[in-house]
Amino acid sequence: MDASSLRKLLQQIKDGRVTPDEAVARMRHMPFEDLGFAKIDHHRRLRAGMPEVIFSQGKRPAQVAQIFKRMVAEGGNVLATKASKDHFRAVKKAVPKAVYRELAQAITLQRDAATYGKGTVVVISAGTSDIPVAEEALVTAEIMGNHVAHLYDVGVAGIHRLLLNKKVLEDARVLVVCAGMEGALPSVVGGLVRVPVVAVPTSIGYGASFNGLAALLAMLNSCASNVSVVNIDNGFGAGYVASMINRL
Amino acid sequence: MDASSLRKLLQQIKDGRVTPDEAVARMRHMPFEDLGFAKIDHHRRLRAGMPEVIFSQGKRPAQVAQIFKRMVAEGGNVLATKASKDHFRAVKKAVPKAVYRELAQAITLQRDAATYGKGTVVVISAGTSDIPVAEEALVTAEIMGNHVAHLYDVGVAGIHRLLLNKKVLEDARVLVVCAGMEGALPSVVGGLVRVPVVAVPTSIGYGASFNGLAALLAMLNSCASNVSVVNIDNGFGAGYVASMINRL
Amino acid sequence: MDASSLRKLLQQIKDGRVTPDEAVARMRHMPFEDLGFAKIDHHRRLRAGMPEVIFSQGKRPAQVAQIFKRMVAEGGNVLATKASKDHFRAVKKAVPKAVYRELAQAITLQRDAATYGKGTVVVISAGTSDIPVAEEALVTAEIMGNHVAHLYDVGVAGIHRLLLNKKVLEDARVLVVCAGMEGALPSVVGGLVRVPVVAVPTSIGYGASFNGLAALLAMLNSCASNVSVVNIDNGFGAGYVASMINRL
Amino acid sequence: MDASSLRKLLQQIKDGRVTPDEAVARMRHMPFEDLGFAKIDHHRRLRAGMPEVIFSQGKRPAQVAQIFKRMVAEGGNVLATKASKDHFRAVKKAVPKAVYRELAQAITLQRDAATYGKGTVVVISAGTSDIPVAEEALVTAEIMGNHVAHLYDVGVAGIHRLLLNKKVLEDARVLVVCAGMEGALPSVVGGLVRVPVVAVPTSIGYGASFNGLAALLAMLNSCASNVSVVNIDNGFGAGYVASMINRL
Amino acid sequence: MDASSLRKLLQQIKDGRVTPDEAVARMRHMPFEDLGFAKIDHHRRLRAGMPEVIFSQGKRPAQVAQIFKRMVAEGGNVLATKASKDHFRAVKKAVPKAVYRELAQAITLQRDAATYGKGTVVVISAGTSDIPVAEEALVTAEIMGNHVAHLYDVGVAGIHRLLLNKKVLEDARVLVVCAGMEGALPSVVGGLVRVPVVAVPTSIGYGASFNGLAALLAMLNSCASNVSVVNIDNGFGAGYVASMINRL
Amino acid sequence: MDASSLRKLLQQIKDGRVTPDEAVARMRHMPFEDLGFAKIDHHRRLRAGMPEVIFSQGKRPAQVAQIFKRMVAEGGNVLATKASKDHFRAVKKAVPKAVYRELAQAITLQRDAATYGKGTVVVISAGTSDIPVAEEALVTAEIMGNHVAHLYDVGVAGIHRLLLNKKVLEDARVLVVCAGMEGALPSVVGGLVRVPVVAVPTSIGYGASFNGLAALLAMLNSCASNVSVVNIDNGFGAGYVASMINRL
Amino acid sequence: MDASSLRKLLQQIKDGRVTPDEAVARMRHMPFEDLGFAKIDHHRRLRAGMPEVIFSQGKRPAQVAQIFKRMVAEGGNVLATKASKDHFRAVKKAVPKAVYRELAQAITLQRDAATYGKGTVVVISAGTSDIPVAEEALVTAEIMGNHVAHLYDVGVAGIHRLLLNKKVLEDARVLVVCAGMEGALPSVVGGLVRVPVVAVPTSIGYGASFNGLAALLAMLNSCASNVSVVNIDNGFGAGYVASMINRL
Amino acid sequence: MDASSLRKLLQQIKDGRVTPDEAVARMRHMPFEDLGFAKIDHHRRLRAGMPEVIFSQGKRPAQVAQIFKRMVAEGGNVLATKASKDHFRAVKKAVPKAVYRELAQAITLQRDAATYGKGTVVVISAGTSDIPVAEEALVTAEIMGNHVAHLYDVGVAGIHRLLLNKKVLEDARVLVVCAGMEGALPSVVGGLVRVPVVAVPTSIGYGASFNGLAALLAMLNSCASNVSVVNIDNGFGAGYVASMINRL
Repeated sequence: MDASSLRKLLQQIKDGRVTPDEAVARMRHMPFEDLGFAKIDHHRRLRAGMPEVIFSQGKRPAQVAQIFKRMVAEGGNVLATKASKDHFRAVKKAVPKAVYRELAQAITLQRDAATYGKGTVVVISAGTSDIPVAEEALVTAEIMGNHVAHLYDVGVAGIHRLLLNKKVLEDARVLVVCAGMEGALPSVVGGLVRVPVVAVPTSIGYGASFNGLAALLAMLNSCASNVSVVNIDNGFGAGYVASMINRL
Repeated sequence: MDASSLRKLLQQIKDGRVTPDEAVARMRHMPFEDLGFAKIDHHRRLRAGMPEVIFSQGKRPAQVAQIFKRMVAEGGNVLATKASKDHFRAVKKAVPKAVYRELAQAITLQRDAATYGKGTVVVISAGTSDIPVAEEALVTAEIMGNHVAHLYDVGVAGIHRLLLNKKVLEDARVLVVCAGMEGALPSVVGGLVRVPVVAVPTSIGYGASFNGLAALLAMLNSCASNVSVVNIDNGFGAGYVASMINRL
Repeated sequence: MDASSLRKLLQQIKDGRVTPDEAVARMRHMPFEDLGFAKIDHHRRLRAGMPEVIFSQGKRPAQVAQIFKRMVAEGGNVLATKASKDHFRAVKKAVPKAVYRELAQAITLQRDAATYGKGTVVVISAGTSDIPVAEEALVTAEIMGNHVAHLYDVGVAGIHRLLLNKKVLEDARVLVVCAGMEGALPSVVGGLVRVPVVAVPTSIGYGASFNGLAALLAMLNSCASNVSVVNIDNGFGAGYVASMINRL
Repeated sequence: MDASSLRKLLQQIKDGRVTPDEAVARMRHMPFEDLGFAKIDHHRRLRAGMPEVIFSQGKRPAQVAQIFKRMVAEGGNVLATKASKDHFRAVKKAVPKAVYRELAQAITLQRDAATYGKGTVVVISAGTSDIPVAEEALVTAEIMGNHVAHLYDVGVAGIHRLLLNKKVLEDARVLVVCAGMEGALPSVVGGLVRVPVVAVPTSIGYGASFNGLAALLAMLNSCASNVSVVNIDNGFGAGYVASMINRL
Repeated sequence: MDASSLRKLLQQIKDGRVTPDEAVARMRHMPFEDLGFAKIDHHRRLRAGMPEVIFSQGKRPAQVAQIFKRMVAEGGNVLATKASKDHFRAVKKAVPKAVYRELAQAITLQRDAATYGKGTVVVISAGTSDIPVAEEALVTAEIMGNHVAHLYDVGVAGIHRLLLNKKVLEDARVLVVCAGMEGALPSVVGGLVRVPVVAVPTSIGYGASFNGLAALLAMLNSCASNVSVVNIDNGFGAGYVASMINRL
Repeated sequence: MDASSLRKLLQQIKDGRVTPDEAVARMRHMPFEDLGFAKIDHHRRLRAGMPEVIFSQGKRPAQVAQIFKRMVAEGGNVLATKASKDHFRAVKKAVPKAVYRELAQAITLQRDAATYGKGTVVVISAGTSDIPVAEEALVTAEIMGNHVAHLYDVGVAGIHRLLLNKKVLEDARVLVVCAGMEGALPSVVGGLVRVPVVAVPTSIGYGASFNGLAALLAMLNSCASNVSVVNIDNGFGAGYVASMINRL
Repeated sequence: MDASSLRKLLQQIKDGRVTPDEAVARMRHMPFEDLGFAKIDHHRRLRAGMPEVIFSQGKRPAQVAQIFKRMVAEGGNVLATKASKDHFRAVKKAVPKAVYRELAQAITLQRDAATYGKGTVVVISAGTSDIPVAEEALVTAEIMGNHVAHLYDVGVAGIHRLLLNKKVLEDARVLVVCAGMEGALPSVVGGLVRVPVVAVPTSIGYGASFNGLAALLAMLNSCASNVSVVNIDNGFGAGYVASMINRL
Repeated sequence: MDASSLRKLLQQIKDGRVTPDEAVARMRHMPFEDLGFAKIDHHRRLRAGMPEVIFSQGKRPAQVAQIFKRMVAEGGNVLATKASKDHFRAVKKAVPKAVYRELAQAITLQRDAATYGKGTVVVISAGTSDIPVAEEALVTAEIMGNHVAHLYDVGVAGIHRLLLNKKVLEDARVLVVCAGMEGALPSVVGGLVRVPVVAVPTSIGYGASFNGLAALLAMLNSCASNVSVVNIDNGFGAGYVASMINRL
């Protein structure tokens, strides 16, 4: 399956036996795969600030360091999520400029520090135990070029803490809301704002939380219509979606 | 199942034909239940205002009417839950004084109208669709002799509606909170009051609500510590538990 | 619920009968809600084009008509989702200008026809059976003032149908992607675009689709990072979230 | 994003400013989608005997008839699965040569009756209630050009019935095994033969069968290594996979 | 977050520089939260005896010690649940008066030892393995100022053990009943008493207990109407709800 | 499928036309099943009183009648479970001696009325709604030749009702215990007796009973060791297992 | 808790100080439990050979040893299940005559070695990995005084291995059948015998076996009517039920 | 287990000491298995290249080594799956020619290296984390005598990577497709080819992947009809099924 038939056609153009317009028409009927064209354009402009990402959990420190180094060689920002201190120590040796964001359990290398987001991405967490996931979202939004703000430990059982900080909510162009247990916070926040809310269920809880299933189901059933949901503990995904929205 | 055999034995002691020690030995071999000792005291004082209850769903109108009539004969209040208009028509014929509480889908006959509860049972619903379950709780609390109040359609996505009525919450000695979908309302209410909250998940919702499972799990994982939970759509149970608490 | 008691207090300050410090202390004991401060601003500007919504499923035609009419009286656009032809007939009698969008199973009354969205909301469906959900998203986006486009029946088992229409994808500022069965389409679409994708699992399928659970789980686990998810069959929610994003 | 850049390139070939080889190299870097080439070849030879398929369940008779007719117009065999008698009556009017396979709840129109399969597809069912699913597999295999045989009501609780018919098993080039309840039959059959077994869990059963989940899980855990599984009640899929194997 | 801006405004009214009407208008634009009106009254009287609580599981000893110490500084009772001996050793160093309740796996510091509960909270466990959860409930009730009693190892398969201790049940104003495996005990206890029963499913069991799910479902389906349920292993929650009921 | 071909072969040995060694070789190529060796002995003695059974649910009255009639022709007792009155009317026409056991929703034809069980099978139900399942077990045990007794409406929330009838329990050689909702009764009964208990979860309940799943899980986790479990609503299976035990 | 108060009352009857009628009345108010009537008869004859049992899993070696020793003091046989070698070492020190059954992971002390079972309990396992559970059932049956036999590694994918040993099956008075993965063996065995089969799902398997759930569901849905089921991995329960049946 | 007893009987017929009828009767009482008729033919030709397999996970290195050695003694190829380096070290000592396939976590001993498959088995993985499962399938296919090819890291979110390698797909006679997370790859691949696809869900993912359940459900609901599925992480099973298909 080589490019010979294409080459033959092009030769016929050169020879004047086929006009360019005829050639375009014929090429439409060629099976494109044979041409090998199918490569998606990885043009820098489109990808500006988008990080290469490593999911560290379950990988050995040496593995993460090796992948991290290879990504650094490809240019752009690099982000390793769910990374332990051991992961960082290994990466640090290979890439001395790498930074450990402890709360977020993330390793970053930010070379493109331009601002791509138009407004502020606000990250909210219900409890202190949800902070690692919230910080993962925050670090992701930062490395993708967004102004960020956060509001932590404002769970629904103490609704006044959230209301006292309503101004922070109002400054957001897009919100990421992280909650475990009953996962109610996105509904309350969603009702207080008029911008998109990306909800992240966390696995915080025990017993009938079923590792985040309770929070996930609650968020999918939110009675606030401006809420959409990502996977349990997927702070990275939420930060990524929020960044993409904030660039529009 | 009378006590005649016991009496006969005791007479034999009196007559000197049996010694007390022999009697103790023999009594060990009597089935104690026949003596009536194990019988739970159905004394009116303890049961005051507690209704006899019929779960009408899945029963034919004639069946419900027949059971209702038999319970009327036993005295006290009678309550039929999950009852349709057809159920009521049949009951009405058999027991003309029966009343249909349409919103609650309940049929009641209240003969003991004394007040047994010390404070007010407040029933709250998140959405208008949760009202039938909320009303079932309310009617149950009423027929068990409680002052009641209610607050409907105060879901968490419009938190101001709840806050605007905070005074109603503060008047409660015990609360029943009904919610479907994400089931977040009990957590918010629980955080605003200092009395017990009985949470009722409802089957309102679709898709990933899984007929109330989402709300049930959310309520079991409530971050407000004063919340306990009953079965999905179990308005009766919530009203019953609340009444029992309110009598203390 | 007016501000008269506040005004009276302030007058007393002016009159010198109450010191400012006393006033602060008293105000602490006023129920702040009565002051109207907590009231969410329902200002038209913020809500422009946002519809009042009725979830018709499980409601009787007369009920839907009655609610629809009341909402019409409040002004703005009105949308009834999951509405049957019977629902529409009842609404039509009460509100003659109401329109039935049959594919979407939606009844609309659009009085505010301004354009609020900045780009195009593109709605995609995997199969023909997913179209009702897709159309619900599309009608929602339309009534909220968005340019819309759609691409139906482009499921992943015939990936060429999607690729042949890549231009439509590229025109989108935000996408809504609906799929039942294995729910794979959002991942593929997410990989082809650089804008946010709102994924809607549908209940289309049988057996191990478990009424949309399979598609829901697939979408939550999407390996494309720009995907967030709403509830099963929640076309309205997806259209709403997409509209909110498109207004930014 | 039109084909202008391509046209420009081809013109440059014609003009002699670019050689065909250079053009091929450059075209590799063009985004192929702009060329519109991506059309999959629907060549008849590859599709020989493969039916166009309609999943009738949930569709109205008139709908099925309309789709059926359109497919007939496209040529080839047509198959409508999960079709009721009412579906058939409507189809029959539109396509008089359509045939109803009552046991299989299938409507067929077979115009290509060539044999494409090399051996026999044997379809087995555990109970009589599993026969509709088994027949759907059988009719699918037939319409795709296979010799078929079947063996019904040979469930594992009467293992002798299966053993008495071992010869039928041995004649198979590929087997489809349908079972509900405990779903054990594919494991037993798989252990008796040396050819591939396609297992179909059916929704036959009650209580803890959970509509076929029990059988599905059992089959996925088969201790016979030559077993693979399709969706619950998916007789069509099993017949299709078996046909594809039998053509090799 | 003080009230100085409000005070300044009120002074201006007094000084005649601002009219009351102007003041009302301006106050509408003040973020009400800054005024401190929305602040929940953390008044000691309402919170008397209520502990600050730390969920130790998953936290490092040093973390628990640090949080514990901070809470001690805020006054009142402190309770750390699900705490190991290692947790205690760390806390003990930071807060020498802290006490370890080994059976309950709880660390306590009780400074307010007043009695707030009006009757006795009786804690019951089905098996010896349920005792840690039962003790957590008991310690919670104690630290919140209740008379407590307990009855352990009275599971339903030896119903006589429970009946022999019926007097303990009758002394309760509210009961906490803990059970794993089939979770039947709350139903039996609920039928023997006329006071509220707070049921706690425990994760004791194996196989189809699914970490407490079996017991949880059983309790939610209790045929005794005076039973409400908290999360699996949530002894603290049960003790808290029971305390709140006992204060009424 | 007789043994004639074998007999013929053996005759040939006798006649000297075939050597024993040749015979062994030939026999290897005979399908052994044809020899009847593998045939399960359907000898009357072993099967005495065992009914042929029809699961009527989901079958049309005419179908049930037809199968019933065919089974009658084969001799022995016949039992149709989950049969409606309509089913019975159709059967009655075909088999006039058939009897409808309304409570059990069963149709029976008992021709072998001998007693095969050595003791009494006692069937117990927790609630009145569980009676259809309990009666199915009872009718099954009866038609299989057992002395039976029953005890209905003795749920665990009124434990005295069970204890008052302890004598009935003690008369049992084997027990069948049916319960829906929390499914606790088998554990309590199991603790009171020293014989095998066959537990039947019923689908009675709502919400978190999940159609009998709660009761099923509870019974599988019974803390009474003499309990084994059959499928949800499987009264027939329980009656069958109990009968088999009672014959030993 | 002796009978002294009763004796005193009876003496008063004898002395003529109390009439029998008065005595009956007074006895009604005595807590019946104190009389010891309700006490389950722990008579040796009924309990002959029944072991005291310890579930070792999750307990420390020292704990198991301590409980074991205490049980030894109470007389009778003792059995510790799910016991590791470490558990045994600790028990051995405390009770030198204790024996470790390594395959069964059980520690036993058998002092009552009489035979109570009338026939043979046959234990069957599908795979070699199911043997620990099977051996637990076997050891339980042995210590309860039964003749036992076993048949291991006769899974359904090699059905001939089972058929080759049909004689062992036929010798059984009751069978215990253990299987993981698809859990099909009890159905096949159930179809080959005419005695009760106690099925034990094991947690052997991976992926969609969901720790034994697949096997559990399969067994509950067995199409063989003589099968009842115990909890996943509950070899002890199966051995216990089988022993109880074998004593009848 | 030879045929000597049969031969002896036949000799007696020949000798006239037994009549053919008597022989038939006696043969009925012979255990037919002893005659060897029921014995599955383990003939080399049928089993050519099929490996003996050990599932190493959960077994100790010494155990695996011992089983491996015994299998080697029986001849043929040997395969140990899910084997760690420790497992290999132990096997290597016992069987020096054993080879460790690290990526596949498999130990192999290949003595029969003939080619039995007619075409190429192509193994595809969605992500790099799925490679261990994919390699297990590949190694299995190799050891069973197939030409193999692979294509890794071609997940659906970068669909071009798959399309660029379409030629590899087209060379396949049967495909194995491994994917975790949303499990969409088999549907896309299935739509691109006209041969059977064996799908393997992997447990790669987190949160709502539920250890591979999401991928499993997606694959079972594949809209490509040529897809069948094996258990989660069951690379061996997929390689085995593919090999069996490739031999046809």
